[in-house]
Amino acid sequence: MPELRKDPIIDRWVIISTERGKRPVFFAEEAPTTKVAVCPLCPGNENMTPPEVYVVRPPGSTPGSPDWSLRVVPNKFPALRIEGTLNREGIGIYDKMNGIGAHEVIVETPNHGETLSDMPVDRVQGVFVAYRERTRDLMRDTRFKYIMVFKNSGSVAGASLDHAHSQLIALPIVPRRVSEEVGGGLAYYKYKERCIFCDIIAQEKEENTRIVYENERYIAISPYASRFPFETWILPKRHSAVFSEEDPVDNYYSLAEVLSTILRKYVKVLNNPPYNYIIHTAPAASIGIGHYHWHIEIIPRLTKMAGFEWGTGFYINPTPPEEATTYLRETEI
Amino acid sequence: MPELRKDPIIDRWVIISTERGKRPVFFAEEAPTTKVAVCPLCPGNENMTPPEVYVVRPPGSTPGSPDWSLRVVPNKFPALRIEGTLNREGIGIYDKMNGIGAHEVIVETPNHGETLSDMPVDRVQGVFVAYRERTRDLMRDTRFKYIMVFKNSGSVAGASLDHAHSQLIALPIVPRRVSEEVGGGLAYYKYKERCIFCDIIAQEKEENTRIVYENERYIAISPYASRFPFETWILPKRHSAVFSEEDPVDNYYSLAEVLSTILRKYVKVLNNPPYNYIIHTAPAASIGIGHYHWHIEIIPRLTKMAGFEWGTGFYINPTPPEEATTYLRETEI
Repeated sequence: MPELRKDPIIDRWVIISTERGKRPVFFAEEAPTTKVAVCPLCPGNENMTPPEVYVVRPPGSTPGSPDWSLRVVPNKFPALRIEGTLNREGIGIYDKMNGIGAHEVIVETPNHGETLSDMPVDRVQGVFVAYRERTRDLMRDTRFKYIMVFKNSGSVAGASLDHAHSQLIALPIVPRRVSEEVGGGLAYYKYKERCIFCDIIAQEKEENTRIVYENERYIAISPYASRFPFETWILPKRHSAVFSEEDPVDNYYSLAEVLSTILRKYVKVLNNPPYNYIIHTAPAASIGIGHYHWHIEIIPRLTKMAGFEWGTGFYINPTPPEEATTYLRETEI
Repeated sequence: MPELRKDPIIDRWVIISTERGKRPVFFAEEAPTTKVAVCPLCPGNENMTPPEVYVVRPPGSTPGSPDWSLRVVPNKFPALRIEGTLNREGIGIYDKMNGIGAHEVIVETPNHGETLSDMPVDRVQGVFVAYRERTRDLMRDTRFKYIMVFKNSGSVAGASLDHAHSQLIALPIVPRRVSEEVGGGLAYYKYKERCIFCDIIAQEKEENTRIVYENERYIAISPYASRFPFETWILPKRHSAVFSEEDPVDNYYSLAEVLSTILRKYVKVLNNPPYNYIIHTAPAASIGIGHYHWHIEIIPRLTKMAGFEWGTGFYINPTPPEEATTYLRETEI
C-alpha cells in the first residue's frame, strides 16, 4: 500500500510508493524515451488496461469492443489505491495516511499519434466532458477531498506513453498549492470584496499586452509573473470557482476552442514542444465561493528547471510574457 | 534591467529577464548539452569572466594570474544587476521591483573535469568558506534581504558549463519557500518551545532507519517525506539558524566531510547522477533565532518532474527513503 507522508516543517504531502521502489540501477539505466512494442492505449488492446470506467462509443456498440472514441481506465500502476479506509496516524513528529485515492487515465483518442492539438474542437470538448464526469463520479466518494486533472505531453514533460492521454488523481487531502491559491484569493477578497482573478482579467483587458487569445466565454493570457517562457493561463470570463460545475455543452466547447488554439500556436511558434497542463480548481466542496476562480495553467517545457527553482519556489524566466504574447498572437494557425 | 514581478495570488516573486528574451526558435533548436570550445572557467581564461571578487591563491602570487585554486566571479550573464536603487512600484493589481541583486559564480577548482566528489575534503571545505565570505560581504549591502547558494551539477540539473562551479544569488526579497520554512518552524516553536529540526534529528537518531551518514558535528538523512528518490538533507547537530555563522575552521571541515561522503556514495550507487543542492538558511538578519535550523538539501536528478508536481507542489516518490538509506549506507566508498 502506498503511503501519504507529510513534511512536518511545511504542510506538504508526498505520495511514497512503498511497493514499487525502483532499484538504483534502474535510474542509472533508464533510457530518455520509453518505447513500448505494443501500445496499451490503442483500440484492440483493451485487455492490457483495467476495465473502462467511462467511455464514448457509437450508439449500439458493445462494451469492451474497440470502436470507442474516448476511454477512461484506472491506471495500471496507480500512485494511490482505491480500496481501503483512510487511516491517519502520527509517528512521533511525523504524520502519515494510507495511500487511498484514485488514479485514472483519460485516453483522448483511439488514433495512436494523433495529438490534442490535431483533434477537432468537439473532440477536445469531449475530453473536458470526460474530466467532468469522472470528477463528479469520484466526488461522491467521501474519502476524497480533491480531484486533480493534468496532462503530461511528451517524454520530457513526464509522459511515459506516446498515445495522447491525460490523468486524474483523486486525493484524500487538498494539495498545498490549492490551499495557498484559495487562501491568497480569500485574503484579497476580504480586503476588496472582489475576486482577484476577475480583477486580473479586467486589468489584462485594459492593458491588452498579455492577452494571447479570447472568445466569448474564455480568455488566454501570459500571466504577469510568468514562471516559465510561454506559460499560458486559460480562465472563464464569468466568475466560477469549480471546473466541474461549468455547463458541459456551451462552456466546454468554448474552452476547447481556446485550448486548441493555444496548443496549435505552441506547435507553430515553439516547434511542437513537450508541455503540461493542470486544471486549478477549488475543491468541489467550495462550489459558489466568490474568492476563487478556476483556470488551466499550461507550461511548455522549454527550459531545464534548475534545482534552486525546485528548492526555493523562486523562478527566473528568460522570456517576458509580453514578448511571448506577441509571438503567440501574431502566429497564424 | 531585469524585473522582479510578484504573482498577485500567492506571494511568489519571479525574475523576468526583460533584456535577454530568448527568441522562440532558440528554445526549439537548443541542443541538450551546450559544449563550449574554450572553457571560461579554466585557468588562463580569466579575461573571459568579470574580475574576481574572491580568490584562493598561494602566498605571493599575482592577482589575475592563473595559479588560483578557487575563484568567485560575477556571473557574466547575471539574472539580476548589482547597480541601481531598489524601486518597488504597483501597476494596478500587480507589484514589481527593479531587478537589483548579485549573481556570482564560485569556480570550485582550477581543474576542468574534476568534480566536487573527486576533491579532497579540505578543498570542499574551501568551497564552503567561499560561500561564507561572499555571503558576509554581500550582506553588508542593505538592499539585499537574502543570499541563496546553490549548485547545479550536470546539464540535466541545469548547469550550462561543465567546469565544476556553484552559484550565489543575492536577492532584495526573501524567497517564498524560505519564509514558509521559517514560518513552519515558528508555528512549531510556539507550540512546543523547541526547534522542529532538532526534534527531527532526535527522532531520526532513535528510529535509525533514515540516517545515511553522520560525523561528530553533522548528520545526513533521507527525509521522512522525501519528494525525490535519494533526496538527502545535511543538518548541523547543534542548533544553528544561519549557515554563514558557522565556524569556518572546524565546522566547515566536518560539513565538507559529510557532503563529500554523500556525493561519493551517489557516484557509486546512482552512477554519477546529475544533482542539485541548495543551502537552506534563515536570512542573515535572523541570527540566533530558535525556530529555524539551516541545512543543505541535495536532490539527485533521477526522475522527470511531471507538470503537476510543478503546478501543485504535490510529489510522487517511487523510492521509500528507508530503502534509499539502506542503499547509500551499505555502499563502500
